[in-house]
Amino acid sequence: MYDPYNLEHRIPTKKDFLDTTDFDQSEILDIMKTSTTIRSFLKGGDTLETLYHQNLAMIFEQKSTRTRVSFEVAMEQLGGHALNLAPGAIQLGAHETIGDTAKVLCRMVNMIMARVDRHQSVVELAAQSTVPVINGMSDYNHPTQEIGDIITIFDHLPKDKDLNKIKVVFVGDCTQVCASLMMITTKMGMNFVQYGPPAKWLHDDYLKIGRANNQHYGGTVHVSDNPAVLEGADFIYTDVWYGLYDKETPKEVYMREFYPKYQVNDEMLAATGNPDVKFMHCLPAVRNEEVTDSVIDGPASICWDQAENRLTAQRGLVTYFGGVAEETLDYIKTKEDGKNA
Amino acid sequence: MYDPYNLEHRIPTKKDFLDTTDFDQSEILDIMKTSTTIRSFLKGGDTLETLYHQNLAMIFEQKSTRTRVSFEVAMEQLGGHALNLAPGAIQLGAHETIGDTAKVLCRMVNMIMARVDRHQSVVELAAQSTVPVINGMSDYNHPTQEIGDIITIFDHLPKDKDLNKIKVVFVGDCTQVCASLMMITTKMGMNFVQYGPPAKWLHDDYLKIGRANNQHYGGTVHVSDNPAVLEGADFIYTDVWYGLYDKETPKEVYMREFYPKYQVNDEMLAATGNPDVKFMHCLPAVRNEEVTDSVIDGPASICWDQAENRLTAQRGLVTYFGGVAEETLDYIKTKEDGKNA
Amino acid sequence: MYDPYNLEHRIPTKKDFLDTTDFDQSEILDIMKTSTTIRSFLKGGDTLETLYHQNLAMIFEQKSTRTRVSFEVAMEQLGGHALNLAPGAIQLGAHETIGDTAKVLCRMVNMIMARVDRHQSVVELAAQSTVPVINGMSDYNHPTQEIGDIITIFDHLPKDKDLNKIKVVFVGDCTQVCASLMMITTKMGMNFVQYGPPAKWLHDDYLKIGRANNQHYGGTVHVSDNPAVLEGADFIYTDVWYGLYDKETPKEVYMREFYPKYQVNDEMLAATGNPDVKFMHCLPAVRNEEVTDSVIDGPASICWDQAENRLTAQRGLVTYFGGVAEETLDYIKTKEDGKNA
Repeated sequence: MYDPYNLEHRIPTKKDFLDTTDFDQSEILDIMKTSTTIRSFLKGGDTLETLYHQNLAMIFEQKSTRTRVSFEVAMEQLGGHALNLAPGAIQLGAHETIGDTAKVLCRMVNMIMARVDRHQSVVELAAQSTVPVINGMSDYNHPTQEIGDIITIFDHLPKDKDLNKIKVVFVGDCTQVCASLMMITTKMGMNFVQYGPPAKWLHDDYLKIGRANNQHYGGTVHVSDNPAVLEGADFIYTDVWYGLYDKETPKEVYMREFYPKYQVNDEMLAATGNPDVKFMHCLPAVRNEEVTDSVIDGPASICWDQAENRLTAQRGLVTYFGGVAEETLDYIKTKEDGKNA
Repeated sequence: MYDPYNLEHRIPTKKDFLDTTDFDQSEILDIMKTSTTIRSFLKGGDTLETLYHQNLAMIFEQKSTRTRVSFEVAMEQLGGHALNLAPGAIQLGAHETIGDTAKVLCRMVNMIMARVDRHQSVVELAAQSTVPVINGMSDYNHPTQEIGDIITIFDHLPKDKDLNKIKVVFVGDCTQVCASLMMITTKMGMNFVQYGPPAKWLHDDYLKIGRANNQHYGGTVHVSDNPAVLEGADFIYTDVWYGLYDKETPKEVYMREFYPKYQVNDEMLAATGNPDVKFMHCLPAVRNEEVTDSVIDGPASICWDQAENRLTAQRGLVTYFGGVAEETLDYIKTKEDGKNA
Repeated sequence: MYDPYNLEHRIPTKKDFLDTTDFDQSEILDIMKTSTTIRSFLKGGDTLETLYHQNLAMIFEQKSTRTRVSFEVAMEQLGGHALNLAPGAIQLGAHETIGDTAKVLCRMVNMIMARVDRHQSVVELAAQSTVPVINGMSDYNHPTQEIGDIITIFDHLPKDKDLNKIKVVFVGDCTQVCASLMMITTKMGMNFVQYGPPAKWLHDDYLKIGRANNQHYGGTVHVSDNPAVLEGADFIYTDVWYGLYDKETPKEVYMREFYPKYQVNDEMLAATGNPDVKFMHCLPAVRNEEVTDSVIDGPASICWDQAENRLTAQRGLVTYFGGVAEETLDYIKTKEDGKNA
């Protein structure tokens, strides 16, 4: 049995993007730089074709709006194409082994992205594929969300504040998005807190990853049910309370666990004592459960920018793992030098 | 509750295409001209790229063949791309509000097209979206069908006959296609009749729109179960009798209501007294229910041209609402001037 | 009722690709040449745009991984686009007749590919369509698989061995892939044997096609349950034992019929007496049922090359039936002459 918490067994990856833990801070910064450089180039009205006639197979074992649309548009904008293998179109491990599916697909496409039920599936895909595999979310983590989120955080960093002083508080359930936020913020040397009920705290095997990051890059990692941890937060982040789509927790159960203490509302934002605190949400949101209308639609909310940065991240990821980051950045530089000359 | 019949509450739209009633005759003529100019340019073997790297999200709450294929091909032929968000892929209003879906999608794509169960959904999408929204059919109307249909009617107008003399008879059930045909023909100053059983006549709130058009543009609007109204028809149009896909009327019920009186057959065509009467159908058709094989496959039938004009219309619509109508028409003019020089 | 075995009733096709029996050996060789020429050109890093803005509608009545991905990538790589009309998206013969669907689609797209439940459906599509129709598998045959398979066989032909000496043994169930392999190998004058239990032998109406090929092109066709037929095989090919996806045979039933006698394992490869025998499988495979891990993953296995040649074949097919084979080959020749000049 695969144990996602056992770091020793993680397959060394060169070109797959399964887990940000496989990359050090400078590699993550390279991916981010690729993403944001392409973003400003395209926003300037230019076009890029550095993935011309490259094909990405997108395998979805679960429904997706944001991940699917952002990858499909990213490939299109860069001159390539994404194939949508919707839930049911390919049943990983049903009529053939995951490994065999990987072996076939990598003969026809240039990259594979997979949203899987079990993390082990994307690991097996990557092990048998000769083309790069990107994890589009598993039950363990959501690394493409991490890249979009950390870009959004960098876009909204308080001026002149050191990364080691930044405090990111995740409120609520230990979803894979919570775990992923912990991984990426600690990778950047930030201070991460999960504020939630003890039964829903991040597993210690996740926290080990955060603590290892603290040792390398500074920062801290905590879980707590004490509202005092909200104080001084630069970012408040939350996610839904119902758990996974395919096995949702009944509403009366999760409301008892989280409501009203862990609802992000104006009082909670005020409790940070930071008038410039920002609100983030990976979406979809259940309005007036984990977050009030006043917060998600209010001035602190950057969750729509965050959604747009899913696209920012995917363009960078397909460029970086597609092996064309260097030529893309060179092309952009040449173009912009030309304009400024 | 949203009331689609209450024109006062209609959201003023600038760039959305929810309802042809939001546009005056000259704007509709502009859209038609955009569509037909592109059609003849492409039929001449030329290529257009005026929507280069533009992405259209197509949301389908219901199945679709014609609308989906025509929009996807239209975007491709103009250099862009359409994303197919099939029924179930996005559940409008399920895991998130329609407004939130709109806010996210418009950060990633350049245009949204939606076929919705309830008209209110596409209105809400448009209200929250910063990019143009096109109504790909609701329970209230089918405006993209209107553009294709009116182009088809113009393609087959009797020579030298004034628009105010043209008579279009819709036979059968008051579907949204029937209502839409009434809206667009009266917008053009034509004479519209629905010939069907009284229980299936267009609601008076629809007819009000037709009467308002009559006042502006001339023409008339009637509903009747008297076969005398067939006389002098230039176009006979029909639609299926079973109602909506997701709640079809049982066959024995609708046959009792419509058959044989309202079947379009050779006798009905003869009853128009017009040997050049044309037959139209939005398709799919149930052969030998609402129309006989002899009519749909006969010389009067222009329903296959009409189907092709779905594509003609969509190219014009994405060009017009994509904000590139002027530059597209200029480009075509320049190209054709070059050929003729 | 349509009888696929009745060759007299087959519709004469000019530009449709429903059945390789409609084409003579030299036409098949032309298709293969188109496919392999494009393959080597693209592998050299060049790009082709000979299907620029051409649209292919792919209708799937059944799920597909290989056929769908290979056609979609083929169209994209050649500058065009494939529309995925997934199972349920279009219900052939449900809300409208197949003929009407064909009449509409061919007004909007440049080519149609259909994977159908019943062969008759693709025949009806082709009869009513004014654009080329490609059979992407029916219950009768799988002609696009044939082209990929025969290309793979040609890629791995024993050196200097005459086609009339080549022996291809299909082991197991008389699936449509088995029938198709018989058709294409005998078309090339090879010797085909199905080695399987008598109850699962190819129907005599299929064998008639093989015998007609033998008379034209040499070669032989046999069915047998005698393991002696394995001797001298150049290629061993197998397929799953469970039959069709939508009505799978229960495992205990098919294991009783085929296991262990008809499992392709190391002993069976040895029984050919040919150390260079190659193993083929159309995939998906049920490992350790019809083929052992040791064979499918071993040195004799060419089934992954074979999967890649689905893409090789589809590029050739859409080029050939898209009517641009000549201009594509001319373009490639000009380009390569330029390089070598």
